[in-house]
Amino acid sequence: MSNPSLLILPGDGIGPEVMAEVRKVIDWYGENRGLNFDVSEGLVGGCSYDEHGTPLTDETMARAQEADAVLLGAVGGPKYDNLDFSVKPERGLLRLRKEMDLFANLRPAQCFDALADFSSLKKDVVAGLDIMIVRELTSGIYFGEPRGIIEEGNERVGINTQRYTESEIDRVARSAFELAMRRGKKLCSMEKANVMESGVLWREVVTEVGKDYPEVELSHMYADAGAMQLCRWPKQFDVIVTDNLFGDLLSDAAAMLTGSLGMLPSASLGAPMANGRPKALYEPVHGSAPDIAGQGKANPIACVLSFAMALRYSFDQGDEATRLEQAIEKVLADGVRTADLLGEDGVTPVSTSEMGDKIVEAL
Amino acid sequence: MSNPSLLILPGDGIGPEVMAEVRKVIDWYGENRGLNFDVSEGLVGGCSYDEHGTPLTDETMARAQEADAVLLGAVGGPKYDNLDFSVKPERGLLRLRKEMDLFANLRPAQCFDALADFSSLKKDVVAGLDIMIVRELTSGIYFGEPRGIIEEGNERVGINTQRYTESEIDRVARSAFELAMRRGKKLCSMEKANVMESGVLWREVVTEVGKDYPEVELSHMYADAGAMQLCRWPKQFDVIVTDNLFGDLLSDAAAMLTGSLGMLPSASLGAPMANGRPKALYEPVHGSAPDIAGQGKANPIACVLSFAMALRYSFDQGDEATRLEQAIEKVLADGVRTADLLGEDGVTPVSTSEMGDKIVEAL
Ligand SMILES: CC(C)[C@H](C(=O)O)[C@@H](O)C(=O)O
Ligand SMILES: CC(C)[C@H](C(=O)O)[C@@H](O)C(=O)O
Repeated sequence: MSNPSLLILPGDGIGPEVMAEVRKVIDWYGENRGLNFDVSEGLVGGCSYDEHGTPLTDETMARAQEADAVLLGAVGGPKYDNLDFSVKPERGLLRLRKEMDLFANLRPAQCFDALADFSSLKKDVVAGLDIMIVRELTSGIYFGEPRGIIEEGNERVGINTQRYTESEIDRVARSAFELAMRRGKKLCSMEKANVMESGVLWREVVTEVGKDYPEVELSHMYADAGAMQLCRWPKQFDVIVTDNLFGDLLSDAAAMLTGSLGMLPSASLGAPMANGRPKALYEPVHGSAPDIAGQGKANPIACVLSFAMALRYSFDQGDEATRLEQAIEKVLADGVRTADLLGEDGVTPVSTSEMGDKIVEAL
Repeated sequence: MSNPSLLILPGDGIGPEVMAEVRKVIDWYGENRGLNFDVSEGLVGGCSYDEHGTPLTDETMARAQEADAVLLGAVGGPKYDNLDFSVKPERGLLRLRKEMDLFANLRPAQCFDALADFSSLKKDVVAGLDIMIVRELTSGIYFGEPRGIIEEGNERVGINTQRYTESEIDRVARSAFELAMRRGKKLCSMEKANVMESGVLWREVVTEVGKDYPEVELSHMYADAGAMQLCRWPKQFDVIVTDNLFGDLLSDAAAMLTGSLGMLPSASLGAPMANGRPKALYEPVHGSAPDIAGQGKANPIACVLSFAMALRYSFDQGDEATRLEQAIEKVLADGVRTADLLGEDGVTPVSTSEMGDKIVEAL
C-alpha cells in the first residue's frame, strides 16, 4: 500500500518558517515510528498571487482534493491589503475550505500549564482550561449569495447574506455532539435567535439533533452573552458549537484568553473520502504575523500541534499524537521558550528552528 | 417653557426595580437643582406582550417619537422564549431603535477603580480602563431584507441580510470621530473586510470620513483580531467604531472585561429633532436578569448612569451628569455594594433600593 499523502501549503509570513519545523517532526516519525507520508508542497495566499496572479491555482486546488490531509501555515499580509477582494490571500484559504467542504472547524482553546501566566486573565480563571469550539466553516455569511457592492440610487451598498440550510446545521451539530460524547458531554450552542431568523433555525435544528444524544447536556446561549461568559468564566464550557462568523470571533477571543495563542492548532474536517478518511485541513489558529516574519522569532508549536491533530483525526494515530503533545509539554516544562512566550525574567528565547530541534529531541 | 419630557420604559425582569431607583434620582434633581422633567411611563417587551399582545404598541411608539429622551430598563425573559419571532420582547426594543433611527449606540467600557478586582482579567490589564465603543444600531444584519425562514427543495433555510449603505456608514463614523475628538483622538474601526464586501465598503467610507478629522489617529482591525486585542490589552483603544452585529458581541465582551457589568450605561442617539436635541434612548448594558428579578438584589447603578448620560447628551447638563457620576463613585468608595459587587469578604450587600437611597444621599 502506498503512503498516505500530505499536501503542505506553507503560505505567507511566518508560515514557511513554522512549517519547516513541522517537516522535521514528520521526518522523525518516518525514521523512528515507521510512519511515512508522501509529502508535497504547494502555494496558497499572497505567495501564490505573486507567482500566478491568484491566491490558489486550480492545480493546487485539485491536489488538495486528492490529498489525505492538507497542512496549511498562514495567509495574508499588508503587502496584499490593497488587492482586489477576489484575489486577496484569504480567498485562497476560503476556496480550500469551501471546495473541500470542510464544514466542521475544531478549535481547541487550551491553557498550557507552563504558560498560564501569559494570559491577561487571572490564573485561576484559565489554569487547566480545555474547551473545544466547533465552528461551522463552509456556509453562513462567509459564502452566502447575494453579496457584493452595488449601486443603489446615488450611493453604494455593501451586501452579504447569512444563509443556513437545515442539513448544514445538522451535520456540524452532529460533529459537535460526537466530540462532546468523547469529552465532558456538555454542549453549548451559540447564535442570536433573538434577532436573526437564521439563529432561530439554528437553535431548532441543534435541539432536534440533540435528541439523538440524550447523554449530552445541551444548552443555548445568545452569542453576545457567550462572548461575555467566555471572558468571565470560560471553564463553564466543554464543547461550543456556533456558526462561521460567530465562531471566527468567539474562537479567537477564547484562544487569546488562554494566553497560549502561539500554541493553538485547528482541524477543519469534511465528509469521509473513499478511503474512509475525512477530507481534512490542519492549520494553526494564529495568523501570518508579517511583523516578525523571516526573523526566526515565530513559535512553531501551533503548527506542530496541527500535525498532531492530523495524526489523530486523519491517520488514526491517536497514540502518536499524544506522544507529540507530550514531547511539547516536556520542552515547555524544561523552560524552552520562543520570544512570544517570554515574560520579563531575562531568559533568552530560542529561535523557531531551535524550538523545532528541541521538540524532535524530546520525541 | 414646558419641562423636557422623559418617557420611562422599565420593561421586564429587573427593569422595573432599577428604574424605581432612577426615579428617586430624577426627583432629587427636580427638588434640588431645578431640573424638572415631564415624566411618563409605558410598556415595552414581555410586559407589553402580556398586556397588549405586542412587545410595543403603536401608541407607545408614538410617545417615544415625541419624547425628549427615552429611558429603558431591560427586555426579555425565559417566559417569552417560545413566542413567535415577530412578537418576542426584543422586537419592541428593536422597533424603538429602528423607528427613532438611533444609529449611534455609545457604549462606554469603563473600569471603576473600586471594582477592578471583579474583573476576570488581571488588575493591571483593566485598572483605569476607559474606552468607548460606538456601535451602528439601525442597520446591518439586524434589519436587512430579505430575511426569514423559507422552504427550499425539501428543507428549510434561515436567511438574514447584512446591508450597509455609504450614508449609513458615514453618519455613524462621524459620530465616532466627533467623540474621538473630545477624548483621546484615537479611533479604531472594526469589520471583516477580508471576508465580507460590506466590510470593504465600511473600511472605505470610514477612511474617507477620516479625512475630515486629520487630528484623529485612525486604524482598522479585523473584528476577530479586535476581539482578541480587547481580551489581551484593552487599554490600547480609545474609541472603537463597528457595525451592529460585531458591536453587539464586542461591546458585551468589553463590558464584561471591566468587571463592572452591572455598572455600565449606554446611549443610543439619532438625528437632531426640531428642538435641537438628538432623538435618544438610554439603557443599561446589562439584560433583564430574570433569575434575580423581584428580589431586591439588582444593581441599579447602570440604569442611574444611563440617566447621567441623558443629562449629558440630551439635556446639555454635563456638569450635573458629572455630579451624579461622582456621587456614585463616592458611594462605591464608601464600600456600599449590591450583591453582584461582592467578593468573598463577608460584607453584607445592600438592596437595590438601599443603593438608590445611598446615591441620593451622596448627591
Ligand atoms: C484569514 C481569515 C479568512 C480567517 C477567517 O475569517 O475565517 C481567519 O480569521 C480564521 O479564523 O481562520
Ligand atoms: C436584547 C437584544 C435585542 C440586544 C441586541 O442584540 O442588540 C442586546 O443584546 C443589546 O446589545 O442591546
